[in-house]
Amino acid sequence: MQKKASLFIFIFLLGLSQVFGQEVPKELENIISPQVNPDQTVTFRFFAPKADSVHLTADFLPPIKVMSRFGLVDGPGKTSLTKDKNGLWTYTSKPLASELYSYAFVVDGIKMADPNSPYALRNGASLTNIFIVGKGVGDVYKTNDVPHGTVVHGWYSSTGLNMSRRVTIYTPAGYEQSSEKYPVLYLLHGAGGDEESWSAHGRAIQILDNLIAQGKVKPMIVVMPNGNVIQDAGYGYGRDGFYKPEFLLPRSMNGEYEAHFMDIVNYVEKNFRVKANKANRAIAGLSMGGFHTMHISRFYPNTFDYVGLFSAAIMPREDATGKVYNQLDQSLKTQKDNGLKLYWIAIGKDDFLYKANVDFRKKLDEIGLKYTYVETEEGHIWKNWRIYLTLFAPQLFK
Amino acid sequence: MQKKASLFIFIFLLGLSQVFGQEVPKELENIISPQVNPDQTVTFRFFAPKADSVHLTADFLPPIKVMSRFGLVDGPGKTSLTKDKNGLWTYTSKPLASELYSYAFVVDGIKMADPNSPYALRNGASLTNIFIVGKGVGDVYKTNDVPHGTVVHGWYSSTGLNMSRRVTIYTPAGYEQSSEKYPVLYLLHGAGGDEESWSAHGRAIQILDNLIAQGKVKPMIVVMPNGNVIQDAGYGYGRDGFYKPEFLLPRSMNGEYEAHFMDIVNYVEKNFRVKANKANRAIAGLSMGGFHTMHISRFYPNTFDYVGLFSAAIMPREDATGKVYNQLDQSLKTQKDNGLKLYWIAIGKDDFLYKANVDFRKKLDEIGLKYTYVETEEGHIWKNWRIYLTLFAPQLFK
Repeated sequence: MQKKASLFIFIFLLGLSQVFGQEVPKELENIISPQVNPDQTVTFRFFAPKADSVHLTADFLPPIKVMSRFGLVDGPGKTSLTKDKNGLWTYTSKPLASELYSYAFVVDGIKMADPNSPYALRNGASLTNIFIVGKGVGDVYKTNDVPHGTVVHGWYSSTGLNMSRRVTIYTPAGYEQSSEKYPVLYLLHGAGGDEESWSAHGRAIQILDNLIAQGKVKPMIVVMPNGNVIQDAGYGYGRDGFYKPEFLLPRSMNGEYEAHFMDIVNYVEKNFRVKANKANRAIAGLSMGGFHTMHISRFYPNTFDYVGLFSAAIMPREDATGKVYNQLDQSLKTQKDNGLKLYWIAIGKDDFLYKANVDFRKKLDEIGLKYTYVETEEGHIWKNWRIYLTLFAPQLFK
Repeated sequence: MQKKASLFIFIFLLGLSQVFGQEVPKELENIISPQVNPDQTVTFRFFAPKADSVHLTADFLPPIKVMSRFGLVDGPGKTSLTKDKNGLWTYTSKPLASELYSYAFVVDGIKMADPNSPYALRNGASLTNIFIVGKGVGDVYKTNDVPHGTVVHGWYSSTGLNMSRRVTIYTPAGYEQSSEKYPVLYLLHGAGGDEESWSAHGRAIQILDNLIAQGKVKPMIVVMPNGNVIQDAGYGYGRDGFYKPEFLLPRSMNGEYEAHFMDIVNYVEKNFRVKANKANRAIAGLSMGGFHTMHISRFYPNTFDYVGLFSAAIMPREDATGKVYNQLDQSLKTQKDNGLKLYWIAIGKDDFLYKANVDFRKKLDEIGLKYTYVETEEGHIWKNWRIYLTLFAPQLFK
């Protein structure tokens, strides 16, 4: 009797996943998609007997030109899946280099996430599936069996912006057990992002865990704040609830963020065991976050010994009206005169901000502020920003 | 010139969201879905000119019977959207009671997440969209403009299970600024869940923030561990990478979890400022987590003054072979004799575990262990577990 009841419950619990989970025909139950094969090819599967066409759109396929407001640009590539007699659509890629990739399906013209994989990241207003191919840089983006840091989602009081604001903070493995003080890297996101971007798309937690475990990066605290001054938190986490994401939020590049950045630094230095001095502070950011990084580091010109500009949007902007943006050349000169250990600039050859970065380096040359310059393939993409973090972090606090 | 360059970038950045985000026709760009209207109705929109049918499946629609392995059960309801001449499908609900709801679309028979909303939770192997209707209990599930606690994703060393395991910990607003010690609630998930379930589906962070701000709940630390002993972390967070979720993982109810639960308690009491005594420890769990809670609290019979069983799966199980399950009646009697302040049992009238809970209460009556019993409408659903948390938490540590 006892045995029977137990079996019944076991079957019931299994049944629940079918009933309250996805509505699936039997054939779909065991579908694995995506499947990373031993030869580094990847198989995608989608069950849709009634569909006339199923395409895969993915960032590892040859890019296709897409019309945008300013002409043709590269968009993610697209290919067709093949339907078998049961209605199962399949596509297997060529062997892929180790990386974190993203994809979605397009079913009879409608883009949708893969119903067999819950691993998706927000991309604008929609969700895009992700997977990792290992045996290379992709391994650095995986959660491996190494000591793990702690991830804290805290709220700091921004007196400048008059609100409590959410921030993501990584403390390295061993932080809780030690009484040591740690150096701090402030890591800023781009337009369309928030305090979740570097830990989600950027895999910053895994990168730090793995590179620290390998002895390549010094144990450090990494602070990932929200750079959109009108938000108290990223989409879905704040007081504005669930609303449709926009790309570039108003007031994000008008000087308010830079002017009140010390609210974040003060919170971190008050609540975490940090070495609160210039030699132990680094700041880096991608795209809009590179713009913020450049301006914050020169507006507080004796605060950061390490500065990283990743595909930085260092462009004159008509909404950049804040007093932060006054006396650009003079403050860069002050920053140089105060001395710093690393001014690191990286950009992809195809980045639409390439020319802006050429111009900015020319300005630094004129001022005499020495920088390290790294040029990579491709353009304004997360693949590059993850790589830049793996290159930048090992140079800090040494 | 400066103005021109700035304008160019602004247009470019806007353009990027279209190009690298979703591929959208102009008509789709401004679609809002779901839209909670002032009269508590909710409008759903989906653009699909080529689709023959678009249905909404949602937990607020009248449930429909679904065949499962053990007969007909209630599944989420389903209704059709209506297509207009532009190919935009629309449905507006009747006014809905305040709650957190979930839904998905079924397009020509294929279930998919709403492409206009990135707010989705993993449900088994797929993603289900969510939204909140306010002006009632739903307001307690929102991030409101109140002091916020901190959410920590840490890793504890489980010597018993021989691995480092991820755990979610909530510390209440003011924790960082004070030197006080806090009481602790251990809050356990059900089968199919992990250390993210109570903060995601359960909205535990928002519930605690809001009820503490209202003065209804005492500031406390809430520990949300992972109850699947074969996992080091939930799907996508651990060393097993991105793989397809299963419902009930092996060894989750065989006694190993309960036997090594003190690894979690030790980590918490070592790394957080807690009142480490019985009067300041509570434990509660839903479904499988209720099973765990019952067994943990009697196996360590002088450890927790507060016990909460939410739709608990208190059933004999054939895989429950661990020594933890020996001498059930005797250890419950010991737990009673040691004294405790609250033994709280809640279940819905339609729960498939209703009878099991009747039997268990009979056992407690025989033993003389006094409990508080709460019976609600409906069955084995998150709506009930969120409500149970709002009822249980105010009774703790007073």
